[in-house]
Amino acid sequence: MTRPVFAITVGDPAGIGPEITLKAIEQLKPRMAAGEFALVAVGDPAALQNIAAVLALTCPPVISQEALARLSGAAILRTPAPDQQIAPGIVSPEGGEQAYQAVAIATRLALEGKVAGIVTAPLNKEALHLAGHDYAGHTEMLADLTGVRSSVMMLAHGSFRVSHVSTHCALEDVPARATPERISRVIDLTLETLHKIGIAEPRIAVAALNPHAGEGGIFGRHDIDVTEPLVRDYVARGEKIFGPVPGDTVFVKLRGGDYDAVVAMYHDQGHIPVKLLGFSVDPETGKWTALNGVNVTLGLPIIRTSVDHGTAFDIAGKGVADATSLVEAVDYALQLSEPAGRA
Amino acid sequence: MTRPVFAITVGDPAGIGPEITLKAIEQLKPRMAAGEFALVAVGDPAALQNIAAVLALTCPPVISQEALARLSGAAILRTPAPDQQIAPGIVSPEGGEQAYQAVAIATRLALEGKVAGIVTAPLNKEALHLAGHDYAGHTEMLADLTGVRSSVMMLAHGSFRVSHVSTHCALEDVPARATPERISRVIDLTLETLHKIGIAEPRIAVAALNPHAGEGGIFGRHDIDVTEPLVRDYVARGEKIFGPVPGDTVFVKLRGGDYDAVVAMYHDQGHIPVKLLGFSVDPETGKWTALNGVNVTLGLPIIRTSVDHGTAFDIAGKGVADATSLVEAVDYALQLSEPAGRA
Repeated sequence: MTRPVFAITVGDPAGIGPEITLKAIEQLKPRMAAGEFALVAVGDPAALQNIAAVLALTCPPVISQEALARLSGAAILRTPAPDQQIAPGIVSPEGGEQAYQAVAIATRLALEGKVAGIVTAPLNKEALHLAGHDYAGHTEMLADLTGVRSSVMMLAHGSFRVSHVSTHCALEDVPARATPERISRVIDLTLETLHKIGIAEPRIAVAALNPHAGEGGIFGRHDIDVTEPLVRDYVARGEKIFGPVPGDTVFVKLRGGDYDAVVAMYHDQGHIPVKLLGFSVDPETGKWTALNGVNVTLGLPIIRTSVDHGTAFDIAGKGVADATSLVEAVDYALQLSEPAGRA
Repeated sequence: MTRPVFAITVGDPAGIGPEITLKAIEQLKPRMAAGEFALVAVGDPAALQNIAAVLALTCPPVISQEALARLSGAAILRTPAPDQQIAPGIVSPEGGEQAYQAVAIATRLALEGKVAGIVTAPLNKEALHLAGHDYAGHTEMLADLTGVRSSVMMLAHGSFRVSHVSTHCALEDVPARATPERISRVIDLTLETLHKIGIAEPRIAVAALNPHAGEGGIFGRHDIDVTEPLVRDYVARGEKIFGPVPGDTVFVKLRGGDYDAVVAMYHDQGHIPVKLLGFSVDPETGKWTALNGVNVTLGLPIIRTSVDHGTAFDIAGKGVADATSLVEAVDYALQLSEPAGRA
């Protein structure tokens, strides 16, 4: 590849995936023309053409896998045609199958080095299950498709980056998941990722599990017994790792520029600050007006970034979806693919 | 009282308490002149006079308790004199004793109806313990002084209000504390508080304990088994209670104006968003530059609000402390004391 090609998986065609894919391609055309990268949307061409008509945008051409190596702009790579037309906003096995096929094809292309990375639009879990693919979501699917079981979720919005020790589990299961091995792995992958995007000496804060980092042991000893010695070891090796830093101050400091990333212990601890900074709701209508932020999967053998929001079935097909998160996700994939980094 | 008098407890004199007290009084002078309220600083006059010299501000006069009823501006009510001068930034039993005495005196005055409420500046827990007062903080002290053991912490920054089901406990103890009885009490006190500040039909969202509100029970059943039926009961009684709403979206919606308050299940869930919106750090110096937000204690027989930050011993005595949080705390106390509300 003379320039990196990223595969955008269109996700569930009944959601906003096709729309944000086309909008992102449109917004990124100047950068593609400048030779930065090329984009291939993996999905059902009909779904993309339908929304292209609503948006009055030109749909990119459908190409074959063989043409990927020569791709310089945007194109569509076809997933196996669905049995029937998929209506916006409706959960269907056909939609789930399309979403699955796009990720399976794009992941294989990435493993074969035919694309530089994959950028995923949202899928609907119920549709995925109706299609017979019993995954909790993209993460589990990618684990199966790549053979890697212990990936790490990083959410990022600009330089506000948060990696997670645990994500989709009950709050009561969090303490048991925050083992020294897991925390180390998350720190290591976060360090590696920050190096990749060009930060020479990354500064990472590890969030405390307990409020006030346990207040000297009065509110639990995890931070003192597990995190403190771990951080000390990293510091002794010359790494700029800080913590345990109480959850209610660590994200204020991250936003203030004290760190390049935070390691959060659990889903809500990391997701609350990222979404509060990246998302907004219109007080008049109650509608989500901005969906910024990228989900980066660390620890896979391929580069994978994703939007940080759902399928938004309620607004699908209407032409009002916001592609900001997808554009950010493409940009993060590009940063991760460049050896020299651009940060 | 023709106008409400609020007692500001100066907190540990070695911290920024005396400074922010004087600065808040200065900022609030126009409103006192307009007859809205009067303020009495409860603490050591020497500590206030010392910082007044640094700030080039006039120190209010020292008055007796008997003069409180006629107070129309600002004054100082003396706590028992310390044995020695208390130096800024140094933890001492004398500082802890001063902080304790101020709260004890102010609380008694509030219980006797001699002040309309108390507004507390920060104290240092270590100093408090050195002075022989073995409380975890203000909350426990107020419980003893008023005889109420189950108060509720609400953090507020403007109309961003968050009440807590649990606060100072290990994360692993949170699920057991989130009983239906406790959640109901927090909802009830939050409703009562919102009514007091003039919101006729408060809208309150209850945050989910587990990520994605348990995702249909896959990540825990607490939200389905405990919170859902509880919320249904409130709705059946005509209250505008919503939830369980996933933690990572509920605060975006609160900021968007969908609710008047959120009930958070635990410390970091509620503190992370409030501090992220109210606090900021200067990227150049790493110093905290803004400390907005008020801590309101619900369920006490007296009105009590507080700053939402610590003693900041590192900047004490230097004249650079920010009094915004204390000014907001006085304003919240005033709102809570007015039968008609002003919201």
